[in-house]
Amino acid sequence: MIKPRTPPGIMELLPRDQIAFQRMLDVIRRNYERFGFLPVETPVMELSDVLLTKSGGETERQVYFVQSTGALEKAAAGGEGVPELALRFDLTVPLARYVAEHEHDLTFPFRRYQMQRVYRGERAQRGRFREFYQCDIDVIGKDALSVRYDAEIPAVIHAVFSELAIGKFTIQLNNRKLLRGFFEAQGVADGELQARVLREVDKIDKRGPDYVWETLTGPDFGLPAAAVDSIMTFVQVRSSSHADALAQLDALGEGNEALREGVAELREVLALVRAMGVPESDYALNFSIARGLDYYTGTVYETTLDDYPQIGSICSGGRYEDLASHYTKSKLPGVGISIGLTRLFWQLREAGLVETAASSVQVLVTQMDSGSLPDCLAIANDLRHAGINTEVVMEASKLARQFKYADRAGIRFAVVLGEDEMAKGTVTVKDLRRADQFEVERGELARTLRVELAQPEVQR
Amino acid sequence: MIKPRTPPGIMELLPRDQIAFQRMLDVIRRNYERFGFLPVETPVMELSDVLLTKSGGETERQVYFVQSTGALEKAAAGGEGVPELALRFDLTVPLARYVAEHEHDLTFPFRRYQMQRVYRGERAQRGRFREFYQCDIDVIGKDALSVRYDAEIPAVIHAVFSELAIGKFTIQLNNRKLLRGFFEAQGVADGELQARVLREVDKIDKRGPDYVWETLTGPDFGLPAAAVDSIMTFVQVRSSSHADALAQLDALGEGNEALREGVAELREVLALVRAMGVPESDYALNFSIARGLDYYTGTVYETTLDDYPQIGSICSGGRYEDLASHYTKSKLPGVGISIGLTRLFWQLREAGLVETAASSVQVLVTQMDSGSLPDCLAIANDLRHAGINTEVVMEASKLARQFKYADRAGIRFAVVLGEDEMAKGTVTVKDLRRADQFEVERGELARTLRVELAQPEVQR
Repeated sequence: MIKPRTPPGIMELLPRDQIAFQRMLDVIRRNYERFGFLPVETPVMELSDVLLTKSGGETERQVYFVQSTGALEKAAAGGEGVPELALRFDLTVPLARYVAEHEHDLTFPFRRYQMQRVYRGERAQRGRFREFYQCDIDVIGKDALSVRYDAEIPAVIHAVFSELAIGKFTIQLNNRKLLRGFFEAQGVADGELQARVLREVDKIDKRGPDYVWETLTGPDFGLPAAAVDSIMTFVQVRSSSHADALAQLDALGEGNEALREGVAELREVLALVRAMGVPESDYALNFSIARGLDYYTGTVYETTLDDYPQIGSICSGGRYEDLASHYTKSKLPGVGISIGLTRLFWQLREAGLVETAASSVQVLVTQMDSGSLPDCLAIANDLRHAGINTEVVMEASKLARQFKYADRAGIRFAVVLGEDEMAKGTVTVKDLRRADQFEVERGELARTLRVELAQPEVQR
Repeated sequence: MIKPRTPPGIMELLPRDQIAFQRMLDVIRRNYERFGFLPVETPVMELSDVLLTKSGGETERQVYFVQSTGALEKAAAGGEGVPELALRFDLTVPLARYVAEHEHDLTFPFRRYQMQRVYRGERAQRGRFREFYQCDIDVIGKDALSVRYDAEIPAVIHAVFSELAIGKFTIQLNNRKLLRGFFEAQGVADGELQARVLREVDKIDKRGPDYVWETLTGPDFGLPAAAVDSIMTFVQVRSSSHADALAQLDALGEGNEALREGVAELREVLALVRAMGVPESDYALNFSIARGLDYYTGTVYETTLDDYPQIGSICSGGRYEDLASHYTKSKLPGVGISIGLTRLFWQLREAGLVETAASSVQVLVTQMDSGSLPDCLAIANDLRHAGINTEVVMEASKLARQFKYADRAGIRFAVVLGEDEMAKGTVTVKDLRRADQFEVERGELARTLRVELAQPEVQR
């Protein structure tokens, strides 16, 4: 006998949690499709040389390699080198490979969504997963892509998180050009140094502003006090309204070319975000957002839950200049975001923001004696044709036991067909959620239950 | 520069084929849920000792092992043995592990569906895939599960393949007890021998009956001619109607206990399949069906497309006595089926039975000059709120180019907002499929397009 268990770092759900998770996936997918994104799925395993084009780095340390039994035996017999196959660690590298490989079969701007699991050999830790869903959208241009596409992304984020209904959120915007321009004006011209400064600045919340100020003026960085003051003021800029956002941009003044470009882009994005109907309470400037510094080049996004800042960004991304330079000479600029749903779901559950769902089964047709089974099956048939998810008890047992099963399983309605009902051509419907019951003509059952099920749910 | 490419044995689709594939997945899922099955997802990687409980065999030769970079280095430095993680090769072993692991949190009978990809290191071959979707349902009982649940399975198969609309199909039924009983009566009592005989009998279509007869009476098997005659007649039994199926069962006579049990089970299944509303033209007895001989114990199913027998079974499964004996002492009998959708999709496409889908994007809002962009975005907003998948051209270009883009992408409607339309408060809608166009008030656009889109599609 072997103990049944999953590997560490895996989130496996019981059915009713899986239903809640699946609903979130469905909401995300529906909204992605609503905005004209097309589905793509790529294989979980890619060729190692294709996947690992960038050498070294933390990511590569986390890669899982895949070997067939044959390859394993060969390796054991003295093979060496990197195994031929590896599991994807994000959806961006597979997207780059996909677009480059199928370039001539795609129409540009290419809008794709992809919602699949990725794999990282993270250190085992609470709330960190080695297998997790990413739900990505990207718009990829050929040669060029207007900054206007950057404005669509917040509209999608807004649609998704409004429908997910997990509380008030704020889509935070920044622009890497603006950030670069500002830093250059402070004498921090080197990109690598900017990155290090930003990493220190990120610690303001945890370590306090004094600690950060000391570090940046101290021996490791040696920045002038005036520059550090400016930087620390700058990165704490948040806008409180659309007008305030524009005012904050005005307040930056003329500046250098990079700053001007960044400001112009943010202005255009803000105007269009508003035109797309995103309420101004739901987006804001945040000059501290940088994201991956070697990758993003323009607009960058983070989204946070107002009442749960400790959860961090629930959806991040930005604009990049060139998606697939490792695979093609074509220039493929793009903009996109990713929702890490597995971790988000875990965090929301921890915070009590998602609950175990009711069953996806809406009706249980009970059975009192096997003589009525054909009638029970006919009733179930009607319900299913009416679009109602229906389970039938195939073996008669005590009614109380069947009700208990329905209740435990989270099924709302139990249909009972006793001798009385058989004689009268009716059924009794027990509403287990409301602890209520009613009798209805068999021919009216499907319609009646559809009406009941369409009504907004009373809070349990 | 690295050549972008996928590993061999992978099916990766362009977006419009992915849409067609996704629709099939959606149909299968919807029907599985309609019949009261609950969603389960398990990790793609399982612990090797959990996954590979059955030692040896063809399956194990096909397993992919997974190693983190760290584990790989350790192995290179003189580690040995089987890697800790392996990719699942089906959904049945993970189901067994899942049910055993979560036994006390599940309600029985436990009805689950699972639609995920599995991995097998098959020899590279046209139409054989190393990564493929399986879409499984199973009903698992605790201690016992009535044979009546076996009758639900054909009803689910019928609902799925009716809605997939890939042509006339027949759900073929047999029963392993009946098969065993019959073989025993012919003096072939040993299970292993029965399996070998059935494998030979399977060759009737390819090699002809004479070849099979010679083999079974020849030195390898040495069966008496009379027994071989009986067996070959028996395995060619197919029923042509419900009444004929019952007559075929009658014709078997009393027989031994196993045969009687098998006949009784098939009778009950047939009666309930009919009661569930499956048309009698869509199911039949087929005494040659055996499926995995070491696993299935009662009812077995295969489903074939009447006009494409060469495709083979598109959906198979059966009844088993004990799901998870490797992991738990609890007896967990069940019944289930699997649809191997990746291979099926490939075969259907080869046979011309599925076509590249129209885009999931239903409307393209074109743009004639950037001044109208806010209006275009407002229109798109309305359409999306009406549930219409809408893409907006964010950068003005020649209209002809935008129409060409929509046409190439398979988008049906293009909405045009020119100066005239702006002045009149209307939009022009171009139906690219019908090469037709009409003008409509802006406030009426969403409603009008919903009506158009709800109409049954004219064949392209």
